Amino acid sequence: MIRIAILGATGYTARELLGLLLRHPEVEVRALTTRQETQPHVAEVHPSLRGRLDLKLENLTTAEVAKRADCVFGCLPHAASAAVISELLDAGCRVVDFSADYRLDDPQVYTKWYQVEHPDPDRMPKTVYGLPELFRESIRGAHLVANPGCYPTAAILALAPLLKAGAIAPRGIVIDAKSGVTGAGRSPKANLHFPEANENLTPYGVGEHRHTPEIDLILSKWAAVETNVVFTPHLIPMDRGELITAYADITAEWSTETLLEILQDYYADEPFVRVIEGLPGTKQVANTNFCDVTVRQVGDKAVVFGAIDNLIKGASGAAVQNFNLMYDFPETTALL
Amino acid sequence: MIRIAILGATGYTARELLGLLLRHPEVEVRALTTRQETQPHVAEVHPSLRGRLDLKLENLTTAEVAKRADCVFGCLPHAASAAVISELLDAGCRVVDFSADYRLDDPQVYTKWYQVEHPDPDRMPKTVYGLPELFRESIRGAHLVANPGCYPTAAILALAPLLKAGAIAPRGIVIDAKSGVTGAGRSPKANLHFPEANENLTPYGVGEHRHTPEIDLILSKWAAVETNVVFTPHLIPMDRGELITAYADITAEWSTETLLEILQDYYADEPFVRVIEGLPGTKQVANTNFCDVTVRQVGDKAVVFGAIDNLIKGASGAAVQNFNLMYDFPETTALL
Amino acid sequence: MIRIAILGATGYTARELLGLLLRHPEVEVRALTTRQETQPHVAEVHPSLRGRLDLKLENLTTAEVAKRADCVFGCLPHAASAAVISELLDAGCRVVDFSADYRLDDPQVYTKWYQVEHPDPDRMPKTVYGLPELFRESIRGAHLVANPGCYPTAAILALAPLLKAGAIAPRGIVIDAKSGVTGAGRSPKANLHFPEANENLTPYGVGEHRHTPEIDLILSKWAAVETNVVFTPHLIPMDRGELITAYADITAEWSTETLLEILQDYYADEPFVRVIEGLPGTKQVANTNFCDVTVRQVGDKAVVFGAIDNLIKGASGAAVQNFNLMYDFPETTALL
Amino acid sequence: MIRIAILGATGYTARELLGLLLRHPEVEVRALTTRQETQPHVAEVHPSLRGRLDLKLENLTTAEVAKRADCVFGCLPHAASAAVISELLDAGCRVVDFSADYRLDDPQVYTKWYQVEHPDPDRMPKTVYGLPELFRESIRGAHLVANPGCYPTAAILALAPLLKAGAIAPRGIVIDAKSGVTGAGRSPKANLHFPEANENLTPYGVGEHRHTPEIDLILSKWAAVETNVVFTPHLIPMDRGELITAYADITAEWSTETLLEILQDYYADEPFVRVIEGLPGTKQVANTNFCDVTVRQVGDKAVVFGAIDNLIKGASGAAVQNFNLMYDFPETTALL
Repeated sequence: MIRIAILGATGYTARELLGLLLRHPEVEVRALTTRQETQPHVAEVHPSLRGRLDLKLENLTTAEVAKRADCVFGCLPHAASAAVISELLDAGCRVVDFSADYRLDDPQVYTKWYQVEHPDPDRMPKTVYGLPELFRESIRGAHLVANPGCYPTAAILALAPLLKAGAIAPRGIVIDAKSGVTGAGRSPKANLHFPEANENLTPYGVGEHRHTPEIDLILSKWAAVETNVVFTPHLIPMDRGELITAYADITAEWSTETLLEILQDYYADEPFVRVIEGLPGTKQVANTNFCDVTVRQVGDKAVVFGAIDNLIKGASGAAVQNFNLMYDFPETTALL
Repeated sequence: MIRIAILGATGYTARELLGLLLRHPEVEVRALTTRQETQPHVAEVHPSLRGRLDLKLENLTTAEVAKRADCVFGCLPHAASAAVISELLDAGCRVVDFSADYRLDDPQVYTKWYQVEHPDPDRMPKTVYGLPELFRESIRGAHLVANPGCYPTAAILALAPLLKAGAIAPRGIVIDAKSGVTGAGRSPKANLHFPEANENLTPYGVGEHRHTPEIDLILSKWAAVETNVVFTPHLIPMDRGELITAYADITAEWSTETLLEILQDYYADEPFVRVIEGLPGTKQVANTNFCDVTVRQVGDKAVVFGAIDNLIKGASGAAVQNFNLMYDFPETTALL
Repeated sequence: MIRIAILGATGYTARELLGLLLRHPEVEVRALTTRQETQPHVAEVHPSLRGRLDLKLENLTTAEVAKRADCVFGCLPHAASAAVISELLDAGCRVVDFSADYRLDDPQVYTKWYQVEHPDPDRMPKTVYGLPELFRESIRGAHLVANPGCYPTAAILALAPLLKAGAIAPRGIVIDAKSGVTGAGRSPKANLHFPEANENLTPYGVGEHRHTPEIDLILSKWAAVETNVVFTPHLIPMDRGELITAYADITAEWSTETLLEILQDYYADEPFVRVIEGLPGTKQVANTNFCDVTVRQVGDKAVVFGAIDNLIKGASGAAVQNFNLMYDFPETTALL
Repeated sequence: MIRIAILGATGYTARELLGLLLRHPEVEVRALTTRQETQPHVAEVHPSLRGRLDLKLENLTTAEVAKRADCVFGCLPHAASAAVISELLDAGCRVVDFSADYRLDDPQVYTKWYQVEHPDPDRMPKTVYGLPELFRESIRGAHLVANPGCYPTAAILALAPLLKAGAIAPRGIVIDAKSGVTGAGRSPKANLHFPEANENLTPYGVGEHRHTPEIDLILSKWAAVETNVVFTPHLIPMDRGELITAYADITAEWSTETLLEILQDYYADEPFVRVIEGLPGTKQVANTNFCDVTVRQVGDKAVVFGAIDNLIKGASGAAVQNFNLMYDFPETTALL
């Protein structure tokens, strides 16, 4: 039994993670932390979990967490996350970090996009990016895994094999992304108030979204090219689900069929990437750890689609998949 | 031209009211107030109105409002509302009050339900309740009109004629009410956060909702009976629209047909109440000032339905209808 | 390994059932039937299941089904269901029937509400009603279980203990029910077209809904009283989730606390009924097999709430719970 | 008084058109046609209009329509539309055609995209495209106006001034479009069934949508360039509202500010195009005839946004705006 702690257990990703871990035969959830002073029962914070887990959220020190848990899932905000995680690693815990802190490899790029000094810069370039479809072998046995952002997951899974195959040009890729509202977190805000977000469709963070450098870094590194994606996210009036529609110049006489073949070949043995011939819908992946990808040739462009559940494959499901790899459990445990 | 001011112009009812008044040929909106110190343009507060009205929201004194406006629509919270409105009336303005302050006639009942002393108790019993279908003649020429609550509007319009005709028993009436989320106001709250309210259905305020005494008072007074309604509101994952489903004991051998006739007779000449033979849907009244009502006999009970747009017939449309009566404009002006 | 067949596998309940059964360690799905001539792969019919089950839907004879399966889940329309199921039972299969065919005990009542002769009337009074919380011992080892209707599940679980305790009067109970749109099935219809059902709220089947006699029969039989519920369902613009709000006369000086105690005592050991002190929300039970119930005393009435996921506890989850009891597997297998 | 007929009055665009025309002081709706044999009252077909218009839908010949109406709004399917409209024009009616039949100028291009011979090819190149912001003078007094498609309206209004100013390159423009479900019409279909479309997000018609040649034709003609847009529409789980997010290469050192200035200059006097500095939301234009546009420079690209209500500025509001121009009424009549 691996003893588990979740840091910052009040949000949607923690709730989804708990739902998955409660089905995992090899784990026991031992600690849930919050930075609030009150110690609410998990059933108060996440009423859907009432009757499934009898645990309080607690304001625990890092030392207390390290005493109770073998593996820690960190759902803390960036910068706060690395500060705690570096201590947990030193104390011998393994960590899956949901924050962005260990996804980038360059502290200066981090500071530019996150407007804060990185508290643990040395670990940045050494940390594996937790996308098993690209970095499986490095994740096996790792002590720290940087769980990918939701948009990067869908974008990279859709684009990476085409880039590596040289079928699409690395420069000028447009990623038009759409996400359900859980992607914006659980804190009430004016634009996320039901009567504002419902029946509405809005772009946000145009040209400024922090997933931009993450997508460029991983695509460029893995495919050995240099990308400069233009990334535009939009808020969709639904709970969960994320679709990226990417546009890239085709480099040669590629057709829909030959582009699809590249994806099919690359993902032939992947348990959680489905290369589909029809067009994707986020509902087909909702509440699952699947990523559905497909591609169409339209004129000189490849139009590439990737659909995930932003809370599962885009966060908590990916974390469990990484956890399974880290501890050598079957990769799909608790995820099907 | 009647010069108009709106007090507390940041909410949804003010926005809807502006939309209606901008179509009214006999009015000019001259002042919009806010209690905030900043003076945002109306287009910042209500972006949908951009390009339609060039006015700032201002933190105005009562005297300034009275100088600029002949008629004031008050969208202030209860208690705060009566304090200002009593001064405006003394200064010669006419007022349509959206708050609950002048809907009840007994200061003690008010204090029991609203937990505050009424700032202007003498005017309470003298104020007309702004439901034209019951109190039209008293509204004509009135200086102060208490605009009804949204649930009371639908409930009273559906039940009042049946009660007065003696077709249903006044004791033991159950009103199961359902409302879209705009009914809960514009301030972000945890339970109104999109991912909480969306795809969810919740009762609230069971046995405690402040519209309960309002419904009992108006029904009892108008139909000369004594009701004790059990009123249970529910939050529905949609923007606007309200349905009440009421259950009352039938007093004699009434059938669906004869019950419908009572409603049809009473509302034959009403411009905004439609007695329908089919079942209602809130979407059929959305963005309109109509109230659709119907009734079914089921066993010993009459099942009575009333559907409105909570922001129009349940608030701003009713206010304009009252305004038209107060100033002797055609009652449907700006409302069709 | 129990070999499973699902009859009529194109709808939402079959999809949910498959999702649950694919997590069940003791079963193997061997046949999916359709009355259509084409033989689509399950991934075409239920794209969310792509990659999880490699099986075609087939137009199979009863004999072929009986050859392939030990236990059959029937998702066929009423009357069609009993005709097939009686043959499967004779052939030695066990059956969980989702249709209404074996829920009532009187063929004449059945014919009155379903406008058709019952094809297998003799089995009607002998069949156990698959609500484990009331009839667990009879379900154990049963060969045929009538899976309850979704509204009856929520209504009966909320009301039955209060009725049996004599806390509420059996006559004059009002059940105001609300359901997400999956409850209306998968066939496109004008009133279920997205732009008609979205942002809309409508009652339907007032005084005529077929769940009425089912609720009356089970409540009356189990609590040894005679009820005559008035049942009014409403369509809510959301996918899944069902809430019943029931109103009953209190028989004595019951308070919210003492009414809650009755429910708490009765459901103390139930794995899937949660007696909550707060008010329920359908989202807290969505995608789970839980039923959340609570009660409030309001004047002379008890206001009783029951919330379920109409597709899980209201259909497919209940079916798996019944299956587990029939085969003596732990009752919560595949359901948590 | 201009006498009006609407052909094909059962759909959403006809309903919206009626709602607008009923507010127009200079028109009288005299005929509503349907190709069905029954003659339903408009209140049966469009229950929201109950009590506002007392007219039946009728299966009328072209001659009968011409006798009753001065101006005809055609909401018929393509090809069927031109066949009727050519006769109406010959009979002396003026026409606003909602179909695509007169939007393109080349019968061969039409046949390629619509898979049918054009019934009235000679009028194609002579017909004015009803986008007042580009072709106002030609619309004035016109006898036939081709009402634009919804996506072309948003896309052209956002892109045209930037193209004409030479600020963006005409080749390689990507238009990622998103629309509410009313854009797909009123006929129930499997993918538009509420539980399929709700909480879902899907692309459709990738590389094949018929608005593609319309956008290319109008942009190229008006801006005297040659475009080859890649156009990808998506279905959004909301009733109404449409957003296009377009990506084009910037031709020189343009900044967000200078790009915005081009739009502001071009639309300075337009009553229905609002150049906004913030990011658009479809809800801000819902139920209005406004188009909100804005632009951002991101790296080498201009990211251009256009938001409309697909049923108003994208269909019925545009039609009324065109009608006002054709008959020399103030352009905003019935639209504010």
